[in-house]
Amino acid sequence: MSSSAKWVPEDTPYVVIDSAKMERNIVKMANLAKGSGVALRPHVKTHKVPAIARNQVEAGAVGITVAKVSEAEVMANAGIRDIFIAYPLVTEEKIQRAIALRQRTRLIIGVDSLEGARRVSAVAGREEHILEVRLEVDTGLRRTGVPYEKAVELARDVDSLDNLELTGIYTYRGAVLDGSPTLDLKGAGLQEGELMVSLADRIREQGIGVQDVSLGSTPTARHAVGVTGVTEIRPGTYVFYDRMQARMGACSLGDCAAEVVATVVSRPIGDLAVIDGGSKTFATDVQPGGEPLNLVGFGEVVGHPEAVLERLTEEHGMISLRGGNDLRVGDTLRIIPNHVCSTVNLHDALFLTGEDGTVEEVPVAARGKVW
Amino acid sequence: MSSSAKWVPEDTPYVVIDSAKMERNIVKMANLAKGSGVALRPHVKTHKVPAIARNQVEAGAVGITVAKVSEAEVMANAGIRDIFIAYPLVTEEKIQRAIALRQRTRLIIGVDSLEGARRVSAVAGREEHILEVRLEVDTGLRRTGVPYEKAVELARDVDSLDNLELTGIYTYRGAVLDGSPTLDLKGAGLQEGELMVSLADRIREQGIGVQDVSLGSTPTARHAVGVTGVTEIRPGTYVFYDRMQARMGACSLGDCAAEVVATVVSRPIGDLAVIDGGSKTFATDVQPGGEPLNLVGFGEVVGHPEAVLERLTEEHGMISLRGGNDLRVGDTLRIIPNHVCSTVNLHDALFLTGEDGTVEEVPVAARGKVW
Repeated sequence: MSSSAKWVPEDTPYVVIDSAKMERNIVKMANLAKGSGVALRPHVKTHKVPAIARNQVEAGAVGITVAKVSEAEVMANAGIRDIFIAYPLVTEEKIQRAIALRQRTRLIIGVDSLEGARRVSAVAGREEHILEVRLEVDTGLRRTGVPYEKAVELARDVDSLDNLELTGIYTYRGAVLDGSPTLDLKGAGLQEGELMVSLADRIREQGIGVQDVSLGSTPTARHAVGVTGVTEIRPGTYVFYDRMQARMGACSLGDCAAEVVATVVSRPIGDLAVIDGGSKTFATDVQPGGEPLNLVGFGEVVGHPEAVLERLTEEHGMISLRGGNDLRVGDTLRIIPNHVCSTVNLHDALFLTGEDGTVEEVPVAARGKVW
Repeated sequence: MSSSAKWVPEDTPYVVIDSAKMERNIVKMANLAKGSGVALRPHVKTHKVPAIARNQVEAGAVGITVAKVSEAEVMANAGIRDIFIAYPLVTEEKIQRAIALRQRTRLIIGVDSLEGARRVSAVAGREEHILEVRLEVDTGLRRTGVPYEKAVELARDVDSLDNLELTGIYTYRGAVLDGSPTLDLKGAGLQEGELMVSLADRIREQGIGVQDVSLGSTPTARHAVGVTGVTEIRPGTYVFYDRMQARMGACSLGDCAAEVVATVVSRPIGDLAVIDGGSKTFATDVQPGGEPLNLVGFGEVVGHPEAVLERLTEEHGMISLRGGNDLRVGDTLRIIPNHVCSTVNLHDALFLTGEDGTVEEVPVAARGKVW
């Protein structure tokens, strides 16, 4: 990424990215995949920035993963030439836009139901295209994905549809083991890998040439790559890491490349400091508490281990100082967010700092792409 | 608001606004204020759309309330000529930008500490301006605002600073009574009004000419206007209302003008439907549960009272159908969000529907303004 002249953001709050840490995270994950003979196809939802996606590809990723056609369009416009939309596309508009994208990039899309696959097949037939699809399988997260025990049957049905080429299976599960959230990342990664490899084998027994067995989130990827038969991992958060990943043991707090910079605007009573960032600045999808993470507060206040970002309203962050009482109005704090992906989605820009002190403002070009 | 040619959004998810309901909500609140002899200064954080702010002013609002200088800039650019930034500005950059705005609009800013007020005074002095300020008072929410019992003393200190004109006091408390969340909106509104009127009187006894006694959120405004001495209310959410307000009794679900339109993308198992909107589409700052609201799920699925939007990940909304099992892949759902303000902040545009069936795409121009 090219760095520009020295410059600082106009004001707080903003998200700062330590470029050196980010590059280290990118290279480390690329090397892990390379060393295991597994393809890396990072989910770019974490940064939503084309230049960072290009960094990931230059470091060795085979392509990228996105959740939305509109994100794929942003990334294709920026020159990414291999994109997996890991999401079931079921509306005519989205399927048509996906087909249009194929003029410029290799494109794979997800399917997880016969009804959805029929829709894709119908639009692809009308447009006289053959679309590469992967079957999404639920391995325990209970969101999209055909139930594991019905996957072979659906693979057969999808494979029989016209204008679709079923080339792989994929799952997203995160840190879940035997159906429950876990801190046993190794157990979770191995189980995820074994479930998918075994399923791929059974689908192949049906004469279906499934090549890609794709899985692996940031917490489980490093263990899943050890399972023979896994061909691809799709971690996203590793590019920046966050407090949730550190708590899970997927990284250390020192690996976290993204911090929110905020200013203390009020010290109304002894134990309370209020900062100029609330739920418009910090994501609230990963709440404090909750087994097994038991996160305390909405972020890690760097250098103030006693401080807890306890409550958020839209524009206010309430920090309980719990005795560590040295903050003043106007002081600047750096806070590692609980969940960096959804935090980045709240911001129009990221501020990348280089080791030479340069700061570059980078638009979050694929932010807020809901279609 | 001018309506354009018939047009529908490209795809789901998106936020649709029923223009007729919105206009009704705007007029009703304007009439309430007018009938009580109280000024209405709506907080525009709920919609963040200049044209809707102009609607509110045309219906009788004296001006608007914002939380950020950057929001004030967007609104001043759109012709709004009376803006209250109800937030303590403590950084030089923000204070300078506020002063610059005064060339184009009446501007009032919040102060809640002597340290903060000194900063404003210093910058105003350097720029040779006198800034109109209001003192923010905490009446029970425990975020910004000088503690109630210290407000008279701080008013005296602020009033003695150069280049500041202290013209009012304000509070934001919402539905809180005696320090705890409540469904007794009347009790909360009356208490809020009485606390602030009594405080204003005591400040005036010090020879400080406080004119404006400003308070009132959407749930409490209609009761607070009944307290003699209250001069202004600043409700925001009433423009659209939302599920939280309906649950509090501030409106009915039928008054809610904003809905998220989403598509069922997966029906993996009998009781689960997955929609194409998750925590990037629905705000997660107002979570299910929590006394006294006890909201069930992240939104009200219109026409499907048995369906619960139980879990959200970034791009997935998991709906538990609890037996009401008639949804299919491709079906479209309309969902009233728990908290509309933070939901709107996730979207780049709103889709306003007229009674004649026209649909107008309106950019959320002040979205994501963090500075």
